[in-house]
Amino acid sequence: MSDCREAPPKFRIGLLGHGTVGAAFAALVAEHAGRIRRITGLEPELCGVLTRSSGDFQAILAEADLIVELIGGIEPAKGYVLEAMRAGRHVVTANKQLLSQHGDELFAAAGEAQVQLRFEGAVAGVVPVVRVLQESLAGARIDRVHGIVNGTTNFILSEMARQRITFDQALAEAQRLGYAEADPSDDVDGRDAAAKMAILARLAFGAPVHLDQVRYEGIRQITPDDMEYARELGLGLKLLGTAERIGDALSVRVHPAFLYPGHPLASVGGPFNAVTVESQAITEITMSGPGAGGPQTATAVLGDVVSAMIPPASPPEEMVTLPILQDVVSAFYLHLEVADEPGVLALVAQVLAAHGVSVKSVVQRGMSEQATLVMVTHAVLESRFEAATAEISRLEPLRAPPRFIRVIEEEF
Amino acid sequence: MSDCREAPPKFRIGLLGHGTVGAAFAALVAEHAGRIRRITGLEPELCGVLTRSSGDFQAILAEADLIVELIGGIEPAKGYVLEAMRAGRHVVTANKQLLSQHGDELFAAAGEAQVQLRFEGAVAGVVPVVRVLQESLAGARIDRVHGIVNGTTNFILSEMARQRITFDQALAEAQRLGYAEADPSDDVDGRDAAAKMAILARLAFGAPVHLDQVRYEGIRQITPDDMEYARELGLGLKLLGTAERIGDALSVRVHPAFLYPGHPLASVGGPFNAVTVESQAITEITMSGPGAGGPQTATAVLGDVVSAMIPPASPPEEMVTLPILQDVVSAFYLHLEVADEPGVLALVAQVLAAHGVSVKSVVQRGMSEQATLVMVTHAVLESRFEAATAEISRLEPLRAPPRFIRVIEEEF
Repeated sequence: MSDCREAPPKFRIGLLGHGTVGAAFAALVAEHAGRIRRITGLEPELCGVLTRSSGDFQAILAEADLIVELIGGIEPAKGYVLEAMRAGRHVVTANKQLLSQHGDELFAAAGEAQVQLRFEGAVAGVVPVVRVLQESLAGARIDRVHGIVNGTTNFILSEMARQRITFDQALAEAQRLGYAEADPSDDVDGRDAAAKMAILARLAFGAPVHLDQVRYEGIRQITPDDMEYARELGLGLKLLGTAERIGDALSVRVHPAFLYPGHPLASVGGPFNAVTVESQAITEITMSGPGAGGPQTATAVLGDVVSAMIPPASPPEEMVTLPILQDVVSAFYLHLEVADEPGVLALVAQVLAAHGVSVKSVVQRGMSEQATLVMVTHAVLESRFEAATAEISRLEPLRAPPRFIRVIEEEF
Repeated sequence: MSDCREAPPKFRIGLLGHGTVGAAFAALVAEHAGRIRRITGLEPELCGVLTRSSGDFQAILAEADLIVELIGGIEPAKGYVLEAMRAGRHVVTANKQLLSQHGDELFAAAGEAQVQLRFEGAVAGVVPVVRVLQESLAGARIDRVHGIVNGTTNFILSEMARQRITFDQALAEAQRLGYAEADPSDDVDGRDAAAKMAILARLAFGAPVHLDQVRYEGIRQITPDDMEYARELGLGLKLLGTAERIGDALSVRVHPAFLYPGHPLASVGGPFNAVTVESQAITEITMSGPGAGGPQTATAVLGDVVSAMIPPASPPEEMVTLPILQDVVSAFYLHLEVADEPGVLALVAQVLAAHGVSVKSVVQRGMSEQATLVMVTHAVLESRFEAATAEISRLEPLRAPPRFIRVIEEEF
């Protein structure tokens, strides 16, 4: 059979968007056409490119077997993606805003049209977390996903720790090196990571999770001082996304968190992304790699295109319904600036105890009239800890508002 | 359309082998049938099980859409797998011996029959390296794969470092905990890792690589002393598999190697597996998780079954031909027991220099009449280093044969 092969049939790709990622994607298709032909038996071919100033969506759609959406943002991307799926075309996108805010509508449209909607590039660049949650772990009940899914903040925190500099200094360096945008708010305030965690929670638990249901905090408030005390306590700081099953509910959140040194995410430095998936049956899988840059995202998008070239339409997973929790259990690092006078530690400890917050370790440091009191607590319901710190903030010896950061413990 | 769904069509799985992994697989299929139905639209069903004492292969084959082979070893597994593919059935296997020794025949049969041959469970348990090399990175030119692909040896080396015990002591502990078999030769001598690296090399480079072409060494010769000097030099020891492109050739090998602390594999401890894939376009991806245990391998096998349930037959990748190199460039840790007399260091350094081996760091320790000389070299062609150590072993002040271990450098 293999002696008289004809030219392989073509697989036509319509490309929407021709920015950094779009241009890199087009170049990769040309460069790797031979290898893709060997894997899939089909010849990939760009059948049209839509840019801001040229190209016609309807003409591209009519020609294409699959649409790659790299425009970004909600509209017109959303309209194009829905129309393409309703016309029976598979869609590959790297658009996290779209998926985290309109996931229900998009997945329903894919299901009705029996087409594939793939989006590895939307979460952690070429780190294959979507693929692993959807296929490799189809036979595992997932308990928790922990992720460093924003490279900008991971770079900033790494530099703050390494060079003992402030957030502003590290941000300026990230901007200089191209790891942060001129307006870094979406990254440093945690909203980008929250969108990605909404997508991961949907995949891990088969539940519809919207960006609005994800609690998020950023890293602007982190000081070199926090880093220094953490070092003394043997901890390292990350902006951590968490999606976890708690009883019959889910919690999805993003906040800075200290990790003990043996945690699989503790050693992930610089602009890298990493995700740990925990399941009782398999313990845990960790995947790490460069966060979203042009070539990485383009590679992830092409990986999705190749996967879609193999199968025909497969209906996406149906959703289950799980309530989303807002109050969960965490351990905390608590940083207090207090007057250096007798009885302050006892006073603070009393308030904590009254709210059921138990202290694991304490570092106290006096500096003439003022002292710094740093504590790490055992795990406690966050609402209780917040009530305790609210009360502590009103104590007479307090010299500044209490500061706190969550701590991920070795055994939860 | 979704309002009047009928019972989904069945997808029948024939299971060959019912040991630890086979039994765990059967249980997972039953447990996760609902989720698999949601993902694939098909109802998975075991249509027959072949054990040593019961079941009929022909009857199972006639019923099955897909055959899962978990018998292990070469025959009768090979005959069954070939016959199943020739009969048009997809095959999922976790059999590394079969794939590393008869890969050409198996992949050719899959290609001719246009069926899928999937084998995630054969390499690193549920760590998704096969899937990533075949699909995610279809659009990336892979330069190198580094892997810790044997959990037994990684556990032993971790315990030697942690408890400062000997190989024999750590092996006994691994056996007690079920991480090593009664006859541990395949694991501790590196043959198991070599089989897995042959499979990974085939995937990464699309080249036919046979187990016989993989050079391998094990870890029996590693001493607590080596570990101690390595600690002083800031290095950690792993049994490392490497498959790399060197010009227009390949090198595939397994040997103990020291890693600098920042290497993504350096923090992988205990019975875990991990693989780093390097490509210029994407820098690197690292994946880690538990090595092959019953539930992990069964989960990986089921992940493959789910992937195969989505598409129809896809022809496997055609092979390219790349020569396999045996002599490559490495840095080395060199451990010498010498008489403690003037001029020994000069003598050794002279021999090294004569063979083009350049020294990066030296630790010397005297103990009455004898001294230990430990060096780390810069990267050099291995044949040169071997010639140098052969000459050093004949030097008069030498008190024991030279010992050496490769060192993976930060920048190669």
